[in-house]
Amino acid sequence: MSRKISFTGIERLALYYRYLTSLSRSERAFISSEELAKAVGHTAAQVRRDFSCFGTFGTPGKGYDTAELEATLSEILGKEKTWNVVLVGVGNLGSALLAYRGFQSQHYTVVAAFDTDIRKIGKHLEGLEIQDSRDLADLIPRTGAKIGIVSVPGDAAQEVVDALVSAGIKGILNFAPTRVTVPKGVIVQHVDLSIELDRLCYGLVHPPM
Amino acid sequence: MSRKISFTGIERLALYYRYLTSLSRSERAFISSEELAKAVGHTAAQVRRDFSCFGTFGTPGKGYDTAELEATLSEILGKEKTWNVVLVGVGNLGSALLAYRGFQSQHYTVVAAFDTDIRKIGKHLEGLEIQDSRDLADLIPRTGAKIGIVSVPGDAAQEVVDALVSAGIKGILNFAPTRVTVPKGVIVQHVDLSIELDRLCYGLVHPPM
Repeated sequence: MSRKISFTGIERLALYYRYLTSLSRSERAFISSEELAKAVGHTAAQVRRDFSCFGTFGTPGKGYDTAELEATLSEILGKEKTWNVVLVGVGNLGSALLAYRGFQSQHYTVVAAFDTDIRKIGKHLEGLEIQDSRDLADLIPRTGAKIGIVSVPGDAAQEVVDALVSAGIKGILNFAPTRVTVPKGVIVQHVDLSIELDRLCYGLVHPPM
Repeated sequence: MSRKISFTGIERLALYYRYLTSLSRSERAFISSEELAKAVGHTAAQVRRDFSCFGTFGTPGKGYDTAELEATLSEILGKEKTWNVVLVGVGNLGSALLAYRGFQSQHYTVVAAFDTDIRKIGKHLEGLEIQDSRDLADLIPRTGAKIGIVSVPGDAAQEVVDALVSAGIKGILNFAPTRVTVPKGVIVQHVDLSIELDRLCYGLVHPPM
């Protein structure tokens, strides 16, 4: 199933999935597009469009089979396995990300954390021993991790990303406030917090008519 | 200047601006679209398209006047003033966000931080005394803040957002892993970290053809 979905479409699917997994299964055999829409902040029509793309249609008067919908979304989103994740840069933000429950879940496990600061290396955080970033190339292939979270200062980010890619990482969530480049076959997703704030400000300066 | 720019367009403008402000002005009177493109990970044609929308055109053989471009972007992005920001939820992530340099800059100042935890209230963090969330309605109007950062657990987010809106906040950066709703005239921007990871995973499961 490799049909093309838009950036925001994937986000909606992930939101539907999170909502479904938050429900108590025994009580909810069926769910309406209206309820899903409300939970994720979209319209019922949008929900129905999203699911019809995958050949999933609700039963009139009943809605969608919750278990079936969850299984379909799980497959589409790659939720059938647990992804091992490594994190580089255990500063303020990196430490918070290590503790972030959404990153330590049924689907994601942070299996290694790296830093260059000798005062941090060897210390334990969230059950992980912080490793020396210089050992990244040796250690990452042993973890089977394909995802890397980068939370280093901007001027160190490209070097770290290059090292992660050399170590076999295929997807990077980059929190460093700079754009990094990756070779073909590797995906990078930027989470650029001050740019998010800039975007919000733009909306305040230019309110919709 | 209230023309409509796409979500990703605003992001690019903010990235150009950040790059320009990182340059030493005295050395760089002009900048080429190629250099800007490289710095933000886009094409030179995209850079020229973005600027031509605002009636800003480079000089052939020289490029864009750096100071003029910076002033134009500053106006578009609302960077001519410093925005006061309040933060609610001083947990792991909230503490990291308080310390985040991009949020304590020339353009943004976090002026108040709130939490409900009595063990945190009254403590100081990043030069701010943590306030009781129950005092939010009283304190926020006095700060002149129009922007609120929400980093509370998902089940507390809507209530916090409602209180912020009542206190006069017009733009919300929501880090809570849930979608919140706001009345017309208020903007909410979601930074949903586990959904970002989900989106990355989707890309790994469905590599581009």
